[in-house]
Amino acid sequence: MPIASTPQPPYYAVIFTSIRTEVDQGYVETAEKMVEMAASQPGFLGVESARNEIGITVSYWDSLENIRNWKLVAEHRIAQETGRSVWYSAYKTRICRVERDYGFER
Amino acid sequence: MPIASTPQPPYYAVIFTSIRTEVDQGYVETAEKMVEMAASQPGFLGVESARNEIGITVSYWDSLENIRNWKLVAEHRIAQETGRSVWYSAYKTRICRVERDYGFER
Repeated sequence: MPIASTPQPPYYAVIFTSIRTEVDQGYVETAEKMVEMAASQPGFLGVESARNEIGITVSYWDSLENIRNWKLVAEHRIAQETGRSVWYSAYKTRICRVERDYGFER
Repeated sequence: MPIASTPQPPYYAVIFTSIRTEVDQGYVETAEKMVEMAASQPGFLGVESARNEIGITVSYWDSLENIRNWKLVAEHRIAQETGRSVWYSAYKTRICRVERDYGFER
């Protein structure tokens, strides 16, 4: 997974920080499926993800409306519900407007 | 490292996504020192960090001004410079305003 190639700001970021339970049942498959589905949604710009003690997944979007649309997709809602009941002991979702960015590449 | 306890939005987030080189020389010590120093800066609200293929560190702040102040702290500037010359093959920094958040805890 590379660093996401995002356009000039402003754009939007969803920071999803989570702590997993010890139950793996279906987790990896669903997580991969959700990334694949998100990537095909209108307004999706990219995603970055890492996990060790905690997991952080940041997805980038062109508008708040398209973030909301993705949140309401039926299969994603089922995954959110299973996340609360099975895979996560805690999580926090933060909806952000990216005001400025800069980077470095060798 | 737990999920950061942040106040009611709006507040600010700095998403720092990076890819490491294979050079570890001084990296862990400096990374830990920078988190410790950031935590003592005015306006610091919390930090979350995870790394496997890529690293994602999100720090939370009360204002853009305090984000700028931290960026300019001398020891942090030296760490940024060493990051470009030694530890990172690429990184991206995104400065965001957190508009909304919600969470779940068992």
